Amino acid sequence: MKIVIDALGSDKGYEMIASGLAMAMKKDDTFKAVLVGPENKIKEILKEEKVDFSRLEFIDTDVYIENEDEPVRALRKKKNSTTVLGLNYINNEGADGFISAGSTGALLAGSLFITKRINNVERAFLAAILPNGSKGMVLADTGANMDTSAQILYQFAQMASIYSERFLKISNPRLGLLNVGVEAGKGNKLSKETYNLLQASKLNFIGNIEAREVLNNACDILITDGFAGNVLLKSVEGTASTLIREIKSSIMSSFKTKIGGVLIKPAMKEVLAKYNSKEYGGAALLGVKVPIYKAHGNSDAGNFRNAILEFIDLINSKVVEEIKLELEVEND
Amino acid sequence: MKIVIDALGSDKGYEMIASGLAMAMKKDDTFKAVLVGPENKIKEILKEEKVDFSRLEFIDTDVYIENEDEPVRALRKKKNSTTVLGLNYINNEGADGFISAGSTGALLAGSLFITKRINNVERAFLAAILPNGSKGMVLADTGANMDTSAQILYQFAQMASIYSERFLKISNPRLGLLNVGVEAGKGNKLSKETYNLLQASKLNFIGNIEAREVLNNACDILITDGFAGNVLLKSVEGTASTLIREIKSSIMSSFKTKIGGVLIKPAMKEVLAKYNSKEYGGAALLGVKVPIYKAHGNSDAGNFRNAILEFIDLINSKVVEEIKLELEVEND
Repeated sequence: MKIVIDALGSDKGYEMIASGLAMAMKKDDTFKAVLVGPENKIKEILKEEKVDFSRLEFIDTDVYIENEDEPVRALRKKKNSTTVLGLNYINNEGADGFISAGSTGALLAGSLFITKRINNVERAFLAAILPNGSKGMVLADTGANMDTSAQILYQFAQMASIYSERFLKISNPRLGLLNVGVEAGKGNKLSKETYNLLQASKLNFIGNIEAREVLNNACDILITDGFAGNVLLKSVEGTASTLIREIKSSIMSSFKTKIGGVLIKPAMKEVLAKYNSKEYGGAALLGVKVPIYKAHGNSDAGNFRNAILEFIDLINSKVVEEIKLELEVEND
Repeated sequence: MKIVIDALGSDKGYEMIASGLAMAMKKDDTFKAVLVGPENKIKEILKEEKVDFSRLEFIDTDVYIENEDEPVRALRKKKNSTTVLGLNYINNEGADGFISAGSTGALLAGSLFITKRINNVERAFLAAILPNGSKGMVLADTGANMDTSAQILYQFAQMASIYSERFLKISNPRLGLLNVGVEAGKGNKLSKETYNLLQASKLNFIGNIEAREVLNNACDILITDGFAGNVLLKSVEGTASTLIREIKSSIMSSFKTKIGGVLIKPAMKEVLAKYNSKEYGGAALLGVKVPIYKAHGNSDAGNFRNAILEFIDLINSKVVEEIKLELEVEND
């Protein structure tokens, strides 16, 4: 197992990537890594961490595609960027996958133009996992694809079902469609057409799901276009963080409430951990020919270690192979 | 001032409506009401409440349009429904507006087919008010209109600006567009086109707003199509109620945490009140020729009293007249 790691582009720089990798290497000795980034600086950190250098290769560069760059243009212009060098390595030298905490747009564009989409797959998407009080709910799509079609969403449902079953180990995952009401026939043109396709499929489609139910284990996979999916994801995050901030500040408002806060703190922490959107260190990009993993841009080393370990799990669970098998055949 | 009240169709029946009306009549003696519903039963309750019957008229019926009815068909078939009788009363006898806690679909269809849209207005919408830590944010649309256009959303922005300024007393309200990123050029085809229309308008457009910022007083009005608006509204509600339920149950989990809970309870209550989506008893339906107000279907008498008092405020603030003035002229 050999993975290629983008060492640049995260909010916390190559230092965080190197520390996270060192943690992951100590936890799991089954993988090798190719680090794309400033070689000497990264080596310095890794030497201090006393990692096994026989497991590592380096591609030296200090160029990366930034969040502000227009991804497709940047791919052409920044030939020495971590994204271009890393994905080309996979094509030319061979490796099992690519992981990055950098620009999502660069990762998406790079994977489409360099490692390419699976035959017959119309679009790729980031399969984020939301906490749902159970094993986690796959949200497809979270924002990569804006103007989609029912056929595209149907393919997302096929891919997400394989991902949920193999990676999250949920057998026969329950597939829901994000909609404005639970009854069949609700929604806009796109959601009505998607409903019909899902209803006619072999997938375990359980019907429309309203946004207020998503945290309550209403389904294992939630299908929606990238616009509504992004609104959902960010409003869940925003509401949770606003409420928690307000509750914390109300607890700090007087001596009496501070005492109360101390008494309930451990129990509160458990609740918050259960609904922490960073429970997973990243999200798989599905629909492309090689395993690709997007770690959170604001990861710390611990988050990035988790992302690497999840990615190795993902590769071992052969999600991408299974998607190829199913979608290349079905749509031929 | 005379308002017409739909006494049927709410989750808690005519009893709740009668009690809420009695409370509102005691609080505000400036209005008269026409009650559409089971006359004798309602009178019994109102007699016990000792209200001034000289302020009341009655239209006797026990028919109403249910949530399960297809609204447009039901309008045609249920000629004696509260919706049809009430809105016809406004057309034929004259009154200042109609308020209902019944089916939203029936109210929307009835107002479009009986009291009619304002000239040049393409669609009507429910202008719900979300808590935003300040005076409240108008969300337009919350789900009445599924497949819309930039021109329709632009009109919503015009109407919501008048509503925010006159009803919520926010001068020069900040108008935001719900989108997947803050930069211009983000989003789907609809949001890009709407951005351009708003940017070119005289409205106080402050740009794209991400869903995670809506509770943080990011804007006074948030424009979006009904699908994404509904997802936003319900995910805010769902996340808040899930978190609060989990926190409450974690507080009840041990003796120590129960003591802590008692100490922080008053402070917590304040926070929750600030983000209570029922702070307003209802939402105005804008774009139609007469003032129409939708109270929550699961209102209790106190909520419905609030809804009536808000509605009287709305009528007094002449929002509908101003919308007529501005949109009939601008679009001619």
